[in-house]
Amino acid sequence: MSNKVDLNCDLGESFGRYQLGMDAQAMPLISSANVACGFHAADPVVMLQTVGLIEAAGIGIGAHPSFPDLQGFGRRNMSLSFEEAKATVLYQLGALDGFCRAKGIKMQHVKPHGALYNMAAKDYELSRAICEAIQEFDPSLIVMGLSGSETIRAAKDLGLKAAQEVFADRSYEPDGSLVARSKAGAFIHDEEEAVARVVRMVSERKVKAVNGEDIAIQADSICVHGDGEKALVFIEKIREGLQGAGIKISPLAEIIG
Amino acid sequence: MSNKVDLNCDLGESFGRYQLGMDAQAMPLISSANVACGFHAADPVVMLQTVGLIEAAGIGIGAHPSFPDLQGFGRRNMSLSFEEAKATVLYQLGALDGFCRAKGIKMQHVKPHGALYNMAAKDYELSRAICEAIQEFDPSLIVMGLSGSETIRAAKDLGLKAAQEVFADRSYEPDGSLVARSKAGAFIHDEEEAVARVVRMVSERKVKAVNGEDIAIQADSICVHGDGEKALVFIEKIREGLQGAGIKISPLAEIIG
Amino acid sequence: MSNKVDLNCDLGESFGRYQLGMDAQAMPLISSANVACGFHAADPVVMLQTVGLIEAAGIGIGAHPSFPDLQGFGRRNMSLSFEEAKATVLYQLGALDGFCRAKGIKMQHVKPHGALYNMAAKDYELSRAICEAIQEFDPSLIVMGLSGSETIRAAKDLGLKAAQEVFADRSYEPDGSLVARSKAGAFIHDEEEAVARVVRMVSERKVKAVNGEDIAIQADSICVHGDGEKALVFIEKIREGLQGAGIKISPLAEIIG
Amino acid sequence: MSNKVDLNCDLGESFGRYQLGMDAQAMPLISSANVACGFHAADPVVMLQTVGLIEAAGIGIGAHPSFPDLQGFGRRNMSLSFEEAKATVLYQLGALDGFCRAKGIKMQHVKPHGALYNMAAKDYELSRAICEAIQEFDPSLIVMGLSGSETIRAAKDLGLKAAQEVFADRSYEPDGSLVARSKAGAFIHDEEEAVARVVRMVSERKVKAVNGEDIAIQADSICVHGDGEKALVFIEKIREGLQGAGIKISPLAEIIG
Repeated sequence: MSNKVDLNCDLGESFGRYQLGMDAQAMPLISSANVACGFHAADPVVMLQTVGLIEAAGIGIGAHPSFPDLQGFGRRNMSLSFEEAKATVLYQLGALDGFCRAKGIKMQHVKPHGALYNMAAKDYELSRAICEAIQEFDPSLIVMGLSGSETIRAAKDLGLKAAQEVFADRSYEPDGSLVARSKAGAFIHDEEEAVARVVRMVSERKVKAVNGEDIAIQADSICVHGDGEKALVFIEKIREGLQGAGIKISPLAEIIG
Repeated sequence: MSNKVDLNCDLGESFGRYQLGMDAQAMPLISSANVACGFHAADPVVMLQTVGLIEAAGIGIGAHPSFPDLQGFGRRNMSLSFEEAKATVLYQLGALDGFCRAKGIKMQHVKPHGALYNMAAKDYELSRAICEAIQEFDPSLIVMGLSGSETIRAAKDLGLKAAQEVFADRSYEPDGSLVARSKAGAFIHDEEEAVARVVRMVSERKVKAVNGEDIAIQADSICVHGDGEKALVFIEKIREGLQGAGIKISPLAEIIG
Repeated sequence: MSNKVDLNCDLGESFGRYQLGMDAQAMPLISSANVACGFHAADPVVMLQTVGLIEAAGIGIGAHPSFPDLQGFGRRNMSLSFEEAKATVLYQLGALDGFCRAKGIKMQHVKPHGALYNMAAKDYELSRAICEAIQEFDPSLIVMGLSGSETIRAAKDLGLKAAQEVFADRSYEPDGSLVARSKAGAFIHDEEEAVARVVRMVSERKVKAVNGEDIAIQADSICVHGDGEKALVFIEKIREGLQGAGIKISPLAEIIG
Repeated sequence: MSNKVDLNCDLGESFGRYQLGMDAQAMPLISSANVACGFHAADPVVMLQTVGLIEAAGIGIGAHPSFPDLQGFGRRNMSLSFEEAKATVLYQLGALDGFCRAKGIKMQHVKPHGALYNMAAKDYELSRAICEAIQEFDPSLIVMGLSGSETIRAAKDLGLKAAQEVFADRSYEPDGSLVARSKAGAFIHDEEEAVARVVRMVSERKVKAVNGEDIAIQADSICVHGDGEKALVFIEKIREGLQGAGIKISPLAEIIG
């Protein structure tokens, strides 16, 4: 069973006059950052500054490409053609990489954002479009997707490295998919229970699904949030829980061969 | 005196449902293409397709970064801070480079677009912001700017390679700047005269300014247009004029050491 | 049986530097224009000019609201909440009305555009959101939607006037919905057949569905296109066919009580 | 001397996922609200909600049109043609009015935002474009502009009602223009002094310019801010100062005949 895991968090989500997130405080608590690329959040100045902070913090950096939907924060489903999806991801990978090159750091991973993440998790063709963009851009990048999802399958089919992501505060269906936000029991509100679930997912590769039955799950990275004081405290609790169980928090690149 | 020159043309300016330019026809006639990066024209699919065409044509590829102004086609002056200008250019360089990497080609140059080009030509600080972005992204890139402009000065100050651009259809002031479009005599309407001027700029490094006096000018690249049948015919005439004078049309990379 | 019908066409779809459509030529051939409101096409200057042309032509003017998707020309499905859909339509109605007021003309109708039109045709809630926006903005406006669709049902439920639209070049399923573009037989390619079908839809309120069976259909308005020479010639043929059958082409306001 | 004045504040500046301002708390303290129209801030849902809050608060509502620059929050100078400026304002007036109509309230005024406000204050032609849009949309609207500015002059030339605005926290040049933000002494940091200046501007129509000399100034409305706790407290102080001097805070419509 695994004794290390990555903690990933979405960063760099401010835009122009609008501030979002507590990036400076979150950075020391995580091992990988998913950076907005201007399609659901961020502008070039925000990206320049965010990449600078990440370079200084020394954590792993990943692109967080989205549907082109600033108004909806990338959370609204959109139907893109295969070519549109692929080109849209490629554009955002390049855009973020411009800042990485300027700061002399190398991109580690790619995690689709919001509706693109959720739709791709269930849609092999959309995942394939995303993964082809990644492969053509840089085949050494790690694809981060929902544990057990079509995104992971598409990444592996293309020979890409894949990091399977789990959620501390979400319930799972017996088939390993997330319980829809609109359903009862979608969220784990008890923080101690959430931490215990995360520890078990990493160390035992198991989680209790919403129907009570144990299911297998691969946890290479845990999704955490940095958008408020409460969220930061919860990251601390997860860190303590993991460390108490002898699990080391490590950048993704050290976990995914 | 010089016996070779580059012909550059703006390409990839379509957007979504909107078609612009005759890219496929223009490509065989030019040696370098300036590719829109999504801020004044182009979207990810257009960029993907344009870079594919350029790769097949084997001509030099350059980024054509702009102010963020799709509605104004990047032709409206905007006042950006130094950091905004730098980050805006860096973002677009990266975005285009994503497609270059996917197609396995290397970016050759950067030419600012429209109002950014014109403002930078007279504004050392703005040119400096653009050139710092280029330097941090890839110091081997060639900066293309108005011959004798502040952009060329800023590029050289940073140790970057600079390509000095001239216009076949525009008049020059005695100080080497372009006669403003709003002034009488701004354009050279006689095509034979325009071709003769271009040949002389390349071979003799001289042009007759709007006041009749000869001025010195460096012509590493000639700006041509590919947005209509008439424009394409004019490129042919320029090509014939140059070849008749023993001047070889060569990619920028062969001209700028 | 009816002896008059409206011919409607999408106009004002240019954007910034991009020209689309042959508006000036199409206007004399139609009785109602659907004007883009800036979300899938058009910018304020285009709208100002388009409304000026329509005022001069004296034809009916309608808003053509869309999902916010300039890049996809409003043709990509998006999932908006009820409130988002309603507010999005309200914004666009107001924006177009600003130009109508400036030109001293009154808006006649509202026709949702592209993916919004198609999704709403099958989705009562989305149609309801659109129709509530229209009702709150101006309950005297006519809602134009696919003949027999959920949009028509929602309009009538709210007590709004509804214009049922038919397509000359599309096939119908036995339930009155359009045959999907991806299916064989979706389009009527024979222009004479298309004209004959249109005449029959207006005069007999019947059309032969894709399975060969006659179905009932209400045709208050016929959708025509103005985006090319061929399209304009086809409008002429439809006009001749209608006039030959004694059907008068009339603005929507004269057809829908 | 005047015994009433309007307090105006920018509201409705949130966008999508991004929250800005303390609108609900600011509303009871002011008499007129300037509502963002989607070009520098706000989206249709934000506008729908903001107009609803303003309707409930019963204060005056005005449009706050801007350059199309969400990324720069409308604070970056842009050069628009006369027609572009006019159409851009007309579009935004209409868009906001859609929500006013839906809520059954009437728009009271128009105040240009940010860089558009500042540029127009010194540029008669730009002010003229703005005012022509207002006049053609609804000549009963009040134009709000910098006291003594070109905007006021253009409004009066067109026969429009004009409200002259003053700033509590800014210094004035001897010619009545604002001391540029970049200059020393641009801001009045002492709140008591600021309040005293405001009271004097309203009651005596005079203010001490940055060079120490008294100048004449017309104060129909005072600009206040609602973007933080401190700003709200300062509004309270201004209100107390005004009321202590017997000046009544009144909606603009009661001040401008």
